[in-house]
Amino acid sequence: MTLSGLRHNIHVVIDGTDTPMGKLFDIVLLVAVIASVAVVMLDSVLIMRMKYGTIFYYLEWFFTILFTIEYLLRLFSTPNRIRYMFSFYGIVDFLSILPTYLSLLYVGVQYLLVVRILRILRIFRILKMADYMQQAGFLTMALRSSRHKIIVFFLAVIILVTIFGSVVYVVEGAENGFTSIPVSIYWAVVTMTTVGYGDISPKTPLGQTIASFVMIMGYSIIAVPTGLFTAELKKTMRPQLQPISCPNCGKFGHATEAKFCDRCGHDLHV
Amino acid sequence: MTLSGLRHNIHVVIDGTDTPMGKLFDIVLLVAVIASVAVVMLDSVLIMRMKYGTIFYYLEWFFTILFTIEYLLRLFSTPNRIRYMFSFYGIVDFLSILPTYLSLLYVGVQYLLVVRILRILRIFRILKMADYMQQAGFLTMALRSSRHKIIVFFLAVIILVTIFGSVVYVVEGAENGFTSIPVSIYWAVVTMTTVGYGDISPKTPLGQTIASFVMIMGYSIIAVPTGLFTAELKKTMRPQLQPISCPNCGKFGHATEAKFCDRCGHDLHV
Amino acid sequence: MTLSGLRHNIHVVIDGTDTPMGKLFDIVLLVAVIASVAVVMLDSVLIMRMKYGTIFYYLEWFFTILFTIEYLLRLFSTPNRIRYMFSFYGIVDFLSILPTYLSLLYVGVQYLLVVRILRILRIFRILKMADYMQQAGFLTMALRSSRHKIIVFFLAVIILVTIFGSVVYVVEGAENGFTSIPVSIYWAVVTMTTVGYGDISPKTPLGQTIASFVMIMGYSIIAVPTGLFTAELKKTMRPQLQPISCPNCGKFGHATEAKFCDRCGHDLHV
Amino acid sequence: MTLSGLRHNIHVVIDGTDTPMGKLFDIVLLVAVIASVAVVMLDSVLIMRMKYGTIFYYLEWFFTILFTIEYLLRLFSTPNRIRYMFSFYGIVDFLSILPTYLSLLYVGVQYLLVVRILRILRIFRILKMADYMQQAGFLTMALRSSRHKIIVFFLAVIILVTIFGSVVYVVEGAENGFTSIPVSIYWAVVTMTTVGYGDISPKTPLGQTIASFVMIMGYSIIAVPTGLFTAELKKTMRPQLQPISCPNCGKFGHATEAKFCDRCGHDLHV
Repeated sequence: MTLSGLRHNIHVVIDGTDTPMGKLFDIVLLVAVIASVAVVMLDSVLIMRMKYGTIFYYLEWFFTILFTIEYLLRLFSTPNRIRYMFSFYGIVDFLSILPTYLSLLYVGVQYLLVVRILRILRIFRILKMADYMQQAGFLTMALRSSRHKIIVFFLAVIILVTIFGSVVYVVEGAENGFTSIPVSIYWAVVTMTTVGYGDISPKTPLGQTIASFVMIMGYSIIAVPTGLFTAELKKTMRPQLQPISCPNCGKFGHATEAKFCDRCGHDLHV
Repeated sequence: MTLSGLRHNIHVVIDGTDTPMGKLFDIVLLVAVIASVAVVMLDSVLIMRMKYGTIFYYLEWFFTILFTIEYLLRLFSTPNRIRYMFSFYGIVDFLSILPTYLSLLYVGVQYLLVVRILRILRIFRILKMADYMQQAGFLTMALRSSRHKIIVFFLAVIILVTIFGSVVYVVEGAENGFTSIPVSIYWAVVTMTTVGYGDISPKTPLGQTIASFVMIMGYSIIAVPTGLFTAELKKTMRPQLQPISCPNCGKFGHATEAKFCDRCGHDLHV
Repeated sequence: MTLSGLRHNIHVVIDGTDTPMGKLFDIVLLVAVIASVAVVMLDSVLIMRMKYGTIFYYLEWFFTILFTIEYLLRLFSTPNRIRYMFSFYGIVDFLSILPTYLSLLYVGVQYLLVVRILRILRIFRILKMADYMQQAGFLTMALRSSRHKIIVFFLAVIILVTIFGSVVYVVEGAENGFTSIPVSIYWAVVTMTTVGYGDISPKTPLGQTIASFVMIMGYSIIAVPTGLFTAELKKTMRPQLQPISCPNCGKFGHATEAKFCDRCGHDLHV
Repeated sequence: MTLSGLRHNIHVVIDGTDTPMGKLFDIVLLVAVIASVAVVMLDSVLIMRMKYGTIFYYLEWFFTILFTIEYLLRLFSTPNRIRYMFSFYGIVDFLSILPTYLSLLYVGVQYLLVVRILRILRIFRILKMADYMQQAGFLTMALRSSRHKIIVFFLAVIILVTIFGSVVYVVEGAENGFTSIPVSIYWAVVTMTTVGYGDISPKTPLGQTIASFVMIMGYSIIAVPTGLFTAELKKTMRPQLQPISCPNCGKFGHATEAKFCDRCGHDLHV
């Protein structure tokens, strides 16, 4: 087999899903990704680390070498190496193996090892090829087309929490836990999103009244992103317009079954 | 009466709702199920157990014997015994009576007795026959047809809480309660779903900033399941128009079951 | 003026809103209701009671006598006294004045005085006549027509919190605050509704995992009532069907502009 | 250049966005507003104030003088000075600079300085001219047309929290933290909006039962504002069909601006 043929075959196995080998590769990779993320998680639990630390260490190296081989194969088989290396998944692939090698050079970089958790993002690539991710297309399309409205909504939320946070900072003061404006804004976010940790909570009657107002506001304006998204989703799920222009007047976008332009009456398909 | 006739009659009473006896049986069973669940609950409250423990004990045996008789009658009258025994409700029926008998053999299996709480699932069967559960059909239909999108959404949530949990684990560290990655992911779930117990909460400015971001994200993406479900529900509930024109007056679009044009009265299907 | 004429005039002022006197009466009553509720509230605050207790006492008697006069006038002017007395608002009116008189007979019935807070319900009656409450018609209509589905949803929620509460009761146990099944069910409600007080929270890894699952479930199934209500509201706001029956085949409910029955083709307006 | 010409030129730069100078002015102002708000925030953090207090002081005076010049330029160039001074943004502009000058006169008015945080509202004006704010038009339109229904909803929420707060006040009492009716109403708001700080939480079985009911109610009625807003938003976003038939082919229902039938190309209005 020629080098070019080998490269093509590897590409088919790694990036394709149509061949039995391609499917097997995807399943093995999915299991390896989930298992390696589980190891990273459990390794962070003190009692697990003390008991099974050595096993985790060897498993980690096993996965790292596995993913390194996979990375090199991808690099070898991809049509455009530079583009792959600087693509989203190329960077994720590289960051998935880098920390383990770095831990050889520098001792005590424990927190750096958390970067390995990014491996979980690779699940998306494996599923990308599957039918499932087509479903996500609707979601992202609806999110994208309501983008501007959502940004305005977020801006309004940010300004509201800033003002309410500052007001409650003045009303409650440092002695009730509202030690600074940033902390009070954090409290306002906790309250308006209805999370409500309770690590900081108003103590004075006036503060509690303002807080009640913030809560009811937060409780109500959740209707805005929900309403926006629902409305957009409905639109994207409804029969689409034909993406054609009228050859006579140039009007773009026509109803699915339209044969004539509804602005000038010209035949659309001539 | 022959055995086969008896079996049929029992079947009609136990599984049917059309006869007065069948209705009475359902009501008695519903009351018995609710009462027995109440006894299991109250028996777990220490001061109630100390006061009324003996009464609860006898009530429990009364219900167990009642449900045992019912189980045997079902087994006797059902057309396909094996299928019933391994059906969802067959297993629930069996688990509803098993723990009490097991408590005779092994002393101190208190926690096993909790299995009896599964009796509550039997309420669904009793109501299944009633008109009410038809309504649930719409709900499950809408849920089923948005299944794929909901799985993609859950996957995205799981990946988000894993990444944010790990980031805050690094930022806050064990000294602020974020003792391991799994615990931090638990915190991320508590935060993103806007539950916010407050048993673990960020203390550093950077941790609080990231937490604020997670909260606003969680507060906003709740729009996704709501929007999906609303859109699907609308589709299943809306009666579609027939895409036909009246041969007489040309009116387009008629109600699903329409046979005549409601504008001119002409037969639509001639 | 005759007694009957007087009765009629009082009726017009008290129950009507068309005359200037009727409007004035409504506004005075609205202010009195809000002020009296405010007095009840402030009277429950210890430091306010110690400072202004005497003023509150006299104000309370002033409002009680005012509402007593109003009650007697309503009783005098209403066409059907028995029906008024046992109507919802008749009972609310009576309970609004009763506690103050009872406090003369029995000393120390402080908690009974809270019943006076029900006066706040009278705001609805005052507004009922106004245009505002017509808007509520849509809301209650949408709620009523999705009634069955909402009951099924609530039943499902109750059964879910019972099962999850019991499971976490077994997993966590009394030493982590889950002292009994009812308390654990209370915890499950707090968690599933995303309230999350944090007074009880899981401590074991398995408990936290189950709790995470409950949270994500609660976070997602909020889509169900929202979706149901949105779908119903849309239906009630859409052009209504004509509430007429076909004179030929009897089919009830026809599209707004329908002239002929779309089942039998008969003219609807003959 | 004449005074009138100068005034016009300043007006074009300050209020317009079409010229390069106008765009530059907007960007500089946006950066200055955000930076000055950041300084106010950080200045409230004790350790930041101790470290960089002097820098913050000079930065604050720099921004104050900058905004003062801007305010005077606006006052000079605006066609109607009185109207600007008492407009929403006129007052915000004035309040943005006032506190710093007042701090010269009175020492120790630290809390007054928080008023400067209102500068953040100026972001809206800068964006108002941009395309982004057009998107907000849909949101406010939908909010405005569902105004009446939302007020009725809020009234119902207020009455519900008052009654439930009072009931739990009686049930739990001061020894469990429900020290007065206003505090209990605050608790009811915290619970019904699903915020759930946990600073006050029911301890008695009856209190927890009522609280569970309040939570499930709060969890469900969030459907009301969401449903209302979604329905209104859909209405404002959906283009209505013209209820006309094509005189040639009879097709019923055409896009709002359609002049010709999109099925046969015939003129619709002949």
